[in-house]
Formats: sequence, structure tokens, C-alpha cells
Amino acid sequence: MNDLFLRETEAFLHAQIPLTRAMGVEVESWDGRQLILRAPLEPNHNHLGTAFGGSLSALATLAGYSLLWLLLGDREAHIVIRDSSIRFRHPVRGALRAFCQRPGDEAWEVFRHQWSATGKAHLHLHATIEHEQQTCVEFEGTFVAIR
Amino acid sequence: MNDLFLRETEAFLHAQIPLTRAMGVEVESWDGRQLILRAPLEPNHNHLGTAFGGSLSALATLAGYSLLWLLLGDREAHIVIRDSSIRFRHPVRGALRAFCQRPGDEAWEVFRHQWSATGKAHLHLHATIEHEQQTCVEFEGTFVAIR
Repeated sequence: MNDLFLRETEAFLHAQIPLTRAMGVEVESWDGRQLILRAPLEPNHNHLGTAFGGSLSALATLAGYSLLWLLLGDREAHIVIRDSSIRFRHPVRGALRAFCQRPGDEAWEVFRHQWSATGKAHLHLHATIEHEQQTCVEFEGTFVAIR
Repeated sequence: MNDLFLRETEAFLHAQIPLTRAMGVEVESWDGRQLILRAPLEPNHNHLGTAFGGSLSALATLAGYSLLWLLLGDREAHIVIRDSSIRFRHPVRGALRAFCQRPGDEAWEVFRHQWSATGKAHLHLHATIEHEQQTCVEFEGTFVAIR
């Protein structure tokens, strides 16, 4: 996607969710299948100088939320998170980068059908936080879209 | 606990974890059994005007982290989170207030024994976010202390 589109998406997040500004969240890339969000370590570090767990879970949550928002392409849709779980495998010692992939075709079709039929549908998404080719954090969440 | 102690704990969080300043986190109370952290809605709202899921999970994470830090009473201990799960039951339409209780005596004794013997121990903690007498968010996390 072009840079203007990424900056516009970023501006939308910053306007709607002020904590994303404080975290310095940027949309690094989106190719229609994978979204990467990024935030610098400095405003997101903890007492040990590595990424704060709360920032990591906030960034992973945002990645899932933003992916669904981009896939739906409907800015009037309300997207909320119902539940999530996160596993912190390794400390993140640099910039925070959250990767979230589009779900498989079958899961997406089920979601689209439910969405069209009822105006409310949920989707299970998986995201990771990577640092230097290592998966440091694994996140799973259930997101709900409501028309 | 006296107000000076609460303000000092708050200053420690703000100094060590800068996102807590951006979130406006305050230590509302700590009586030796229950810790309450608080943050205003304004810097923590989402696109729907309710509390952002990422802020809610960050505040619950901080409540668990702070409770363990207060119970241990050892500022040299490193505390990290290993995993957590969170369930968002109802939107939070006002200030975010996270409640975290000290674990039962048995769990605490197991933790203390492990900590004394090995300098590393983990503890499972439960926290909730309440608004107007309603439990809006339920959080569980495993925290690890390392000497």
C-alpha cells in the first residue's frame, strides 16, 4: 500500500486512540495480507529498560484491531475486543514491531457471511511481536465488529 | 497506607515506566491486602469514547506488577510478566480502576519459600477493572520475581 494510505491509517489511530500517540505507534506496512505496526522503545520501556508488558499487549491489540478495520474497509463499523491472551517469551530489547496476518480464507468467509447476515461478527486473530528475527511475544484475541 | 507512601510508589512507577505517566496512572489505595490503581478516561479512551482495551490490559498488568512489588518490599527484585489473559465483559465508560488482591496465604507461602530458596519464583495474580460497581474486565497473569 502506498505511503499516503499508511500515514492516513496512522493518523486515524492517533486521532481516535490518544495512547497510540504517547506510544509513538506507526503503521510500518500493510500488503493486504500482513500488517506491521511499530513503536519506539523509548516511550514504551519498563523498569528493566526492555519493552513494558502493557505496551506490548496494547500494540498487539492495536494490530488485531487495525487489521480487522483494514480488511472490513468500513470506517463506520465498531470494532471491539472481547478477550485475549498473551505469552511473553523473551524480553524485547529494541523497537516494538507487531505482526498480524489476515486469517485463512475459510475463517474470513465465515466472518463475512455472519457480518452480512446480522451486522455483527467475531474473528479470532493471532499477532506476534518480533525482535531480531525472534518471536518475543505471542498474542491471540477475539475481535467483534458491530455495524 | 499513608498518602506519602502512595505518592512515592506512584513516582516510582512514573519514573520507571514512562507509559504510566502518559496514562495518568495513580495509586488510589493499598491496605496491605488490596491495591487499587486508577487512571482517567481522557488519555485512555478509544474510538468509541470508552476505555481502550490496550490501556485496560496495561493497567491490569501494572496492578499485578505493583502488588507483587509491594508485597516483596524489595526494590532490587526484578519482576516480569510471563503470560496473561483478559476478558472484556463490559465497556468502561469512566475512570479506569484496577483492583488486585493479595493471593491466599498458601499461595503466598509457596512463593516466599521458592523465592528464599532459589531467588526466583512465580505467582499467579487476578485483577479486575470495575466501573460503577460492575466488573467490566477480568485479568489473570503469571508474574515472575528474580533476585
